[in-house]
Order: sequence, then C-alpha cells, then structure tokens
Amino acid sequence: MKYLLALLPFPLLLSAPLAAQQADPPTPASVIADAPASDWAAIDPADMLVMTLAPDAQGEPRQVVVQLMPPPFSQGWVGNIRKLAAAQWWDGTSVYRVVDNWVSQWGDVDETKLLPGGLQVIPESAYGTEVTHSMRDLALGRMARVPFPDPQAPAVFFQNGWPTAASSADYPLVSGGSKDAAFAQAWPIHCYGSVGVARNLSPDTGTGAELYAVIGHAPRALDRNIAVVGRVIEGIEHLSTLPRGKGDAGVYDDPALRVPIVSVRLGNALPAADQPRFEYLASQSASFAAYLAVRANRNDSFYRVPAGGVDICNVPVPIRRSAAR
Amino acid sequence: MKYLLALLPFPLLLSAPLAAQQADPPTPASVIADAPASDWAAIDPADMLVMTLAPDAQGEPRQVVVQLMPPPFSQGWVGNIRKLAAAQWWDGTSVYRVVDNWVSQWGDVDETKLLPGGLQVIPESAYGTEVTHSMRDLALGRMARVPFPDPQAPAVFFQNGWPTAASSADYPLVSGGSKDAAFAQAWPIHCYGSVGVARNLSPDTGTGAELYAVIGHAPRALDRNIAVVGRVIEGIEHLSTLPRGKGDAGVYDDPALRVPIVSVRLGNALPAADQPRFEYLASQSASFAAYLAVRANRNDSFYRVPAGGVDICNVPVPIRRSAAR
Repeated sequence: MKYLLALLPFPLLLSAPLAAQQADPPTPASVIADAPASDWAAIDPADMLVMTLAPDAQGEPRQVVVQLMPPPFSQGWVGNIRKLAAAQWWDGTSVYRVVDNWVSQWGDVDETKLLPGGLQVIPESAYGTEVTHSMRDLALGRMARVPFPDPQAPAVFFQNGWPTAASSADYPLVSGGSKDAAFAQAWPIHCYGSVGVARNLSPDTGTGAELYAVIGHAPRALDRNIAVVGRVIEGIEHLSTLPRGKGDAGVYDDPALRVPIVSVRLGNALPAADQPRFEYLASQSASFAAYLAVRANRNDSFYRVPAGGVDICNVPVPIRRSAAR
Repeated sequence: MKYLLALLPFPLLLSAPLAAQQADPPTPASVIADAPASDWAAIDPADMLVMTLAPDAQGEPRQVVVQLMPPPFSQGWVGNIRKLAAAQWWDGTSVYRVVDNWVSQWGDVDETKLLPGGLQVIPESAYGTEVTHSMRDLALGRMARVPFPDPQAPAVFFQNGWPTAASSADYPLVSGGSKDAAFAQAWPIHCYGSVGVARNLSPDTGTGAELYAVIGHAPRALDRNIAVVGRVIEGIEHLSTLPRGKGDAGVYDDPALRVPIVSVRLGNALPAADQPRFEYLASQSASFAAYLAVRANRNDSFYRVPAGGVDICNVPVPIRRSAAR
C-alpha cells in the first residue's frame, strides 16, 4: 500500500536525523499521521474486489485489492464487474499482458470463455457524465478543487476521494444559475494504479471482463476514451513487477508466463474475517486540503524548492487499512 | 526501448484490422515511422552509460543503457559520473533499493567504497541553469515549446531532445531585450525513466555515485531538488520489474535480493562492435512538432476524444537503435 501513502523521503535517508524533523514544516506523511479519525472515510467491503493470484516463484501469496468506482462514474461497467465476480468468472483466467510504463491486463486471453448473462452493453457516451444541478450540489460538499492548471482538462478535482476532470472551469464552483448555464461534463482520470476496461476499437466499450491496471506514468490520453472503473489500493507490486510481454501489444507469447488467477471476489462475499477493511482521507476534509497544499509545496529537510503546483496524479489519495469493525 | 517509442495502440488489438488503419489520421507510431532520416540526431556513444547487471534467474542477460544529459544542465554531476565509470567504480556494487511507483537505485549500499579522486562538490544552485542571451539564442534553434499549461512550471519545452522547464513563460520565445529583462532559469524535468543523483538531506547534492531511475509516475516535485543526469533509453524493464524492497525507504532488507552490477562503462570505452548506437527525433524537426501535436490530440481508430493537451512526460522523446556507423 506504500504507493498510495506518502512516499518516503528520498534516497539515502538511512542517516537522516529523524529527531530533528519534529520542527520541520509538514510533509505528506506528517499530515496523514496527524489527520483525525473523523477525516477518514470507510470503504464498504462491497465496493472492493479481492483478486488472488497463484503464489509467486518463491511460494509467496499474491493478493491484489481493487476499490471499485462509486457513482456517478462508470456505473454500467462496475455493475457488469459485480456480476462477473459473483459468477466467479475470473477464476481460472490469467494476467496475460504486461507493457512497461503502461498496463498489466487480465481476463480471458482467448476471449472464448462464456460470459454470464445480464451484462450491459454500455455506450461511449458513458465515458463522461453530464453534471446536473443536484449532482453539482452534492459534489460541492464532497470535493476538493485542485487549484493548478491541468494540460488536459479545464478543471480537475477530487470527488469522494477520486481524481476527476471537468469540461468547464466553472464546475463545480458555480452553484447558482440554470443547468444550461452551468452545464459541464465530468469524467474519471487515469493515474498510476487506475483500473480500466480493455476494449476493441471504437465503438466497442468493453464489458468489464478484460481489465487492466496502470503501472506507469498516468496515461491521461485514455481519459474519456476508455472506462476507469477502480484503482488498485493494495498489492500493485504483484502486477507492476511481472515480466514484460514480448508478443504483440505486450501479450505473453509464452503461455507459461501467464499468471493464473485463482479467484476474484467482491469483498463482502468473503468470510467476515477475510473481508478487506480500508479507509481513505476524505476529499472535503481539512486534512486533505493540507495534504494537497503540501504535495504542491514540498518544503522540508529534503525538499529545497517548493514547486508551487502539482499535477493531480502526483496527489495520490491516502488510503490505509483500518481496524476490523 | 518500447517505452520510449510510441506506445502500442491499446488493448485487445489482436483482432484490429491493420490494413484499415492506412487511411486513419496520424498516430505517434505513424509519425515516427514517416520521419525522414534528416529529422533524427545521433547520440554520441561517449554520452551513454552501459550498465551490465548479473543475469536474471533464468540466466538471461540484463543490460541497461543510460543516455547522459548534455550541456548546459547537470554538468558537474555528469562529469563525476564519467570519472566514476572510467574508474570502473560501479563494478561489484548493486541495485539495492526499489520502491514501487518511485525509483530503482544503485551504487554502494553501505557508502563505504572509496571514491575516485577529482570528483566535484556541486552546489544546490546547479539544479537550475541561468539562461543567458547566448544560451537562449542557441536554444531557439533546438527546442520545441509545449504549448499547454504545466502545473509545476511557467513554461515547458524540449531542448535537444530533453524535457525542460523554465521559470518564465517568456523563455525562450523572447529573443530580444536585455539579459535582465529576459532573465530566466531553466532546469531538467523528472519523467518516467529519468536518472538522477541520490543524495542525503540538503545541502548535500550527491556525487553521482548513487543513482536512481524513475519507475513510476513522473515525480515532478523532485525537479530543482535533485540532479537529473540522464535517462534510461533501453532496458528499463530490468529495473522496473525488480522486487520492491521491504526495508527502510525500500532498501532490500535481505542482501540476497540485491542485483549485482557486473560493470558500468561509457559507451565509447567499449569495443567498437559493442558500442551503443542510438538516435533521437530532433526537437526542432517538423516530425517532432507533428509527434507532439498527435500526442496531444489522439484521434484515430482507437481514440475517440482528443484531449486537446498533454503533459510533457506523456510526450516520450522517440529514441531508437540506429545502424552501426
């Protein structure tokens, strides 16, 4: 989970005078450590997938936890994914494609395995979501605007702990006016660890059976071109350290390299003791505002020049395991 | 080298109608394929490091090629690195620290190995370079401005094939006026694959003996806080797929996990037949301008919504092996 928490101060550090850091300005790690319990929000086990891969070459277990995207984004695909998990469809499939600085992808490499009934076909228009008045008002209570320019969108913000973009810089700061005047579209952003729905050429949008996780620099050109349906919140290293594929498009040419998927389950389908328990730093909390500010202006015993800005994917939302309820 | 060339069109692709793509709008791959030889610039073998790691568990060889940064950036550190390579100092050291979505780091984990004589101590002021008239005029002939906002710098551009930032949006478009009027500082940018100089707390700047390569989302907060001295142009997978360290700051707690470095040599110190031969797409070429434009506006049989912008680290400079001279 390290990659979603504050990154450790940089390199040699072994000799850093830890005691002397007490008086330092805040760091991402110190802001997270100081956040009161009330600034953390629980993630419902029903909103997580637990993917168990075959043990590694040393016999060590490999488990990946994916948080599914909440409404209003990507609902059609997330609904399909819930059905696929309930049908235990991924059991016996594999991670079959790994491209450096791009993605690790899993599902049925041959695309011949029968899909469960009842999956939705989702139109490309669902890559973005029209922002209505009620949604905007709701969002106002749950979001943090990122006050720096983004090269790919007029506005970027965190909503319910998710990096999101909007087609108008006025959204969601304008709370009055008619819907038409304040119309905007919003969509989820691809960052490191994002999980999306692999697909064939447009207008295909994918079912959700073939999924990928981003294991490199945020591929923002995919925003609005492919469905983001979640993010890896634990175990990304089991996907990012896999050998890169040497076949077409990075598919493993040797089937022996495929990593078997033992099972994929919704968190609430597991025995109570095995259910994943995580929480995230709420976007609208004072702690998140402080975290965002310090990410944009590192200024401590290691960082000498504050940047004065930060891109949204360099503000990984703090997520941590929480005590069992 | 795949990650520095155009990324393959996305996912299932196995069934993509390749013939039908001839009439499509340009893609990064097609722009690169169409670039005339005159738009490519050779990289001098003397400006590359060849790092040979011990073979992997399957006995496969592992070689990483690093291109060193040209003037005017990071010269003190690059000079030290040349001395360290000439002294064969890295031979017998190791890759000893790997942090997911952050860096792989190599050198002498114990920091006890005697350094060669004559290494420079470089001040923090060298993280940036003051832009003089002559430099700016030189740059004008060799750069490509990225015409999109960057959250961390007033201006970003490619200079001699390297992503660079400047403290003034006027640089380097203003070619007249006095030095004071047009004063600006410029500095290299951390992207995926960038190689930098690990260091202890400020004001230490590192010697260049301990190096890291970025294996995740561009850590732009490090810009101007640590020296960027090069980039991995081949073999990044030998660093990005290593097991993540579980000790303090991601250092391998088990010394058996360290990856032995057999040798590090400057390219021109190798026998002629083994010298690395690479070329990059020149920043000021028409092909590079087309490449930048298509990276910002993917609009082909896979991409449906052009972003209308791109962050500089999503414009990986095309670099490829060239024929022996």
